[in-house]
This record gives sequence, C-alpha cells and structure tokens, in this order.
Amino acid sequence: MDKNQIELQQPEQRLLRMFKERAGEYISGEEISRQLGISRTAVWKQINKLRETGYEFEAVSRKGYRLTGEPSRLAAADLMLAARTSVMGRNLKLLDVTGSTQDEARLLAEQGAPEGTLVIAEEQTKGKGRMGRSWYSPPGNGLWMSLLLRPNLPLGSAPQLTLLMAVAVCRAIRSVAGVDAGIKWPNDILISGRKTSGILLESTGEDERIRYCIAGIGIDVNMAAGELPEDLRAIMTSLRIESGQKINRSELAGTILNETEQLYGIYMTEGFGPIAALWEALSISLDKPVTVQTPAGEVKGTAVSLDSSGALIVRLADGQTTKIISGDVTVDPLN
Amino acid sequence: MDKNQIELQQPEQRLLRMFKERAGEYISGEEISRQLGISRTAVWKQINKLRETGYEFEAVSRKGYRLTGEPSRLAAADLMLAARTSVMGRNLKLLDVTGSTQDEARLLAEQGAPEGTLVIAEEQTKGKGRMGRSWYSPPGNGLWMSLLLRPNLPLGSAPQLTLLMAVAVCRAIRSVAGVDAGIKWPNDILISGRKTSGILLESTGEDERIRYCIAGIGIDVNMAAGELPEDLRAIMTSLRIESGQKINRSELAGTILNETEQLYGIYMTEGFGPIAALWEALSISLDKPVTVQTPAGEVKGTAVSLDSSGALIVRLADGQTTKIISGDVTVDPLN
Repeated sequence: MDKNQIELQQPEQRLLRMFKERAGEYISGEEISRQLGISRTAVWKQINKLRETGYEFEAVSRKGYRLTGEPSRLAAADLMLAARTSVMGRNLKLLDVTGSTQDEARLLAEQGAPEGTLVIAEEQTKGKGRMGRSWYSPPGNGLWMSLLLRPNLPLGSAPQLTLLMAVAVCRAIRSVAGVDAGIKWPNDILISGRKTSGILLESTGEDERIRYCIAGIGIDVNMAAGELPEDLRAIMTSLRIESGQKINRSELAGTILNETEQLYGIYMTEGFGPIAALWEALSISLDKPVTVQTPAGEVKGTAVSLDSSGALIVRLADGQTTKIISGDVTVDPLN
Repeated sequence: MDKNQIELQQPEQRLLRMFKERAGEYISGEEISRQLGISRTAVWKQINKLRETGYEFEAVSRKGYRLTGEPSRLAAADLMLAARTSVMGRNLKLLDVTGSTQDEARLLAEQGAPEGTLVIAEEQTKGKGRMGRSWYSPPGNGLWMSLLLRPNLPLGSAPQLTLLMAVAVCRAIRSVAGVDAGIKWPNDILISGRKTSGILLESTGEDERIRYCIAGIGIDVNMAAGELPEDLRAIMTSLRIESGQKINRSELAGTILNETEQLYGIYMTEGFGPIAALWEALSISLDKPVTVQTPAGEVKGTAVSLDSSGALIVRLADGQTTKIISGDVTVDPLN
C-alpha cells in the first residue's frame, strides 16, 4: 500500500487520542501498553511512527511520554482524529505536492476508488478554479482537497450537490474559525465581502445518471495578508486574517468531512429541502440587489430564493421572476 | 498531423465526388485537371492517394480513369463525402483498433478538441456499453464511433441529448438501410424487437454546466447471423440481417452526422420540444405495457410520453402516473 494512502490503524489513532485528551500530562509506557492492549515495544514503535509524521514527544524515565509538539504539516493521524466519519475521508491520500487534487481524485475514481476518497495536497502547482480559471495554491497555509462522491442520482442533481458542499464548508469554517462566513450563490464562501474559499464540483455521468462527482475545495486558511497575491487582496481573505488566529487545518478538514457526511446523509434520505433551507440561512446574496453574469447575458434584480433544482430565483424590476441556472453573482452596493 | 486525423482537402474529395457521380464512366486526366483546377501531375498524385486508402482505379490511355473498387474498410474520404456537415465529424480520427473510442474521444476532448470531433475505429478491444457493460466490437462489420459535443447547457440537459442521439441514429438507420427501426427508451435502437444499436452518452460537467459530452454509438451493421455471439442472437440483430443487404458503413456514418447536426441545431435554437416529438414518433415503447427496472425497484405500467426533461412518464394500473428518470425498459407481450 502506498505510504501516503493509509487507512489509519487503531493503535496509532488511539495512542494519539490518549495524549490529546490528557494534554500536558506524562503517560507511562505501561499504562499505554495496558490501555491499547499492545506490548511495550509496540508502544515505542507507535510513538516513533508518530514522531516520523511530525509529532514531538518528550520521554522521561519513570514518568513516561508527553506530547510536546504537533506537526505543522497536515498529518493523516490528526485528520482522522478530527473526522468522526464512517465514509468521508476514510480512504485518504495525502500529498506534498500535486498538479491538481481534482485530477488526482479523478484518476483514483476511474480506478474504482470508493465513495468518500479524499485527496489533500500541501501544494498544488496547477490548482483549478471554476470556468477554467486557475486557483493559487501555495504550500503550507491553505487547505486544498478533493472529495469523491458516488451518489446514485440523475445528472440534474449535481447543482444541488454543489450547494450542499457550500453549506458543509461554510458551516465548518464558522465552527472552527468562529467567523461570520456566508455563501454567495452558488458556492463561494465569503467573510466581510471577501472570498476565502472556492468550491468546484466536477461531475461525470452516463446517459441520465451521475457516475461520480469530485468536490474540489480550496480554502485560504493561514495566509497572512502579505502572502495573498497583491492583485487579489481587495477581494480575497484568509481565515487567519478574519479570525486573528492560526487555524488548525486538520481540524478544519475533519470538520468539513463531518459536515459533509451528515448533510449528504440527510440529502440522500430527505431530499434537497433541508439542504436548501440551510443554504438559504447562510446565504449572503438573498434579499439583496444582485447583478448576475449568465451565459445568456446580464440579469439585474433581487435574489429571492433557491428553486427545487438549486437554481437561483431573481425578481426583476418589473416584479417578474427569472431562474438563474448558471452565472457569476455580484451583490450590488445599496444606495 | 497524424495520418489518421485528417481534415480532408478539397481536391481529393472533389475528385472522388466526380467519379461517384459518373459511376462506371472513364474520366480523362485532362477533364479532371480542368474541373479541379490542378495540374495533370497533381491529378495523378490524388488518384494514387485514394488508391492508398483502398480505392481502385483503372487507367486506360486516351480514355482516362475509371473507379472500379471502393475500400471495404472505412475511409475518411468516403465518410466526408457522405457527411454534408460543417461541424459534426469535420475533425476526424480513424483508427484500425483501439480500446474504446469513448476513451480516445475523451482524451481528445481534454486536449481541447473542437465540437464535432469524431473517433471511429474498425475494432474496439474494450468497447463500452451502458452501466459498465462491455460492447462486443469485432473488426470489419460494425460501426463503432464517438462524437464530441460541447453544448453550453446545464448538466440536467444531458438526458435530452441522449434522446436526441437516439433520434439521429434511428433516422439514419431507417434512411440508409430501409428498415423499420424504432427506439426503446431511452436510446436503444431495435428492429423487430431485437437490438441493433446502443448509444452511450458520457457527460462531464463543472458545477451546474456541461463541459462536454461524448456520444458513443455502436451499430451492428454487416454481421451475418453466424457472426453474432451465440448467447445474444435472440436479442440482437444487424442491419444486414434485417435488410437482406450489405450496408455502406461510410454512408451510414455520414448520414448519422448529418442527422445529428440538423437535430442539434434545432435543439439549440428551439429547445427539446421538436426533438421529443420526433423521439415519440419513433418510439416502440409508448402506449405499450412496460416493465421498468429502476434504481428504486420495478415499475409496471403503460409508457405514455416523455416529459420536458426527457424522463419517461408511465401510467400505473391505478391510473396515476410516475416519472422514470433512469432504468431498463422491457416492453411486455400483450396477452
């Protein structure tokens, strides 16, 4: 099995949980051995395995081990600890650098990877945005990931999944970073009017069915203001800038997986209604004057709701409503 | 440029048209030279070029050239002559053998190939059917091709394109082979209750939009009864078996391209209405008792119409109607 593609084994994960639950404490090798049901030698091996992925332990004789440092890099063990999921992210591929996590995930999908397969890279050299745009994905302070979904649904449902992913990411950001993030239709996450996350849902279908979808998620997590590209500072921000603190990327990724698994479960059993309601509650474009650039031209009006397919309903100046299936929304300043 | 990927040049095509319009006649090199506006040497070169692709010419001094044989293999020149299109098939890749024309076309699509790009193979070693099934694609007597479409439409429109392709293929088969072919929902082509063609529309989308679709078309054209796999003879047939004659595969492919270009043009300007009407006129499952295997279970009833999205409307025994988005239809025998 590829070193980076690990389904985490129980001892390693349970070991880490012990140390995290008793932060700052020494735990004796004997106690660990007893609690995990493994030999003292095995404990020592597990500790060294975690050390190799960036965790730091102090070992003091007659006291035991103490966790003194965590990896600044994304670590599989950390991420799996934050994700209390049974499907999403359970098949994990962590990469130092890749062209695009979307392409990597697609390759895995074509090879038959299971639903919930997650690709995360520290750095993307050809990060993909919507409509052929590129996505700036430098190493270290961002979260660049792609999640494979295999819903048994018609192709026309893909727009609903796009909105579902926006809800999952927005809720995770709000909960982990404690910031007032909102959604701009269909799936940009904004804080104080500036974008902090973009989502790209790529779908592959056969006749009328979805074969698989890959949700690409890019979040500017810990960039300082100076790290954002100069020409984008007016329209982009990071969770660190907005929250005033460094955010644990593993916790954020894990929380996104938790939210996705919950919302996806609701969606598959209850349909789009509850997702639409959650989306509308987080929307920053509803009840606002908007300008929408659509393939058919510019539309100006007031965004009023989502329809059952996930399209945006806009009320025009003459009181009529129109349905926007696709487009770029700008919320107009109030005069 | 790849030898197989040719945008046909005018002289070669016009030369072939001359010989076909005056079948059996000798045409002097001088006349050809005059009509095509090229030198006698160039005429000789064009004739040799066609000879290389399988055309046979008799050359008699003082009489000129006479077309005496055509390639039994698919030839680009022949196909382009049959296709009076401006987009569909104009970028053509003819292959002797490939794994699957779908995969080949997808590769070209990802490299930016234009709408209408067509891949045809004499033989597929891993021909793809619907739902992961394989498609038997031996060399010589079938038509195995994939057509790239790049409509600027929402993903939910893909089912309509599936039906459009079925109409195009069915109309072409009826016109070229003179047989009473019909469509079983959504896109199988049947003659006398046996399948002669399958269509597979693979779509790739981004958020709510189609990025591209690849229509895979497989037709059992000139197989004799003995050439069909034994276990499939009860449910499969070929155009040759049904029409009692060998069918010109280039003419069939060209006619499919013509039909597709016309119907696609109508669809993009007028919407799905006219396509649905054409589909319904060719349907063999409407107003018949049907059993449909759907992802949600079996549905029995009478197929009554298409809805605006391309779904099949089935009237149940209790008089209520249900909408089938996806499934395998069997027309039940009347008792």
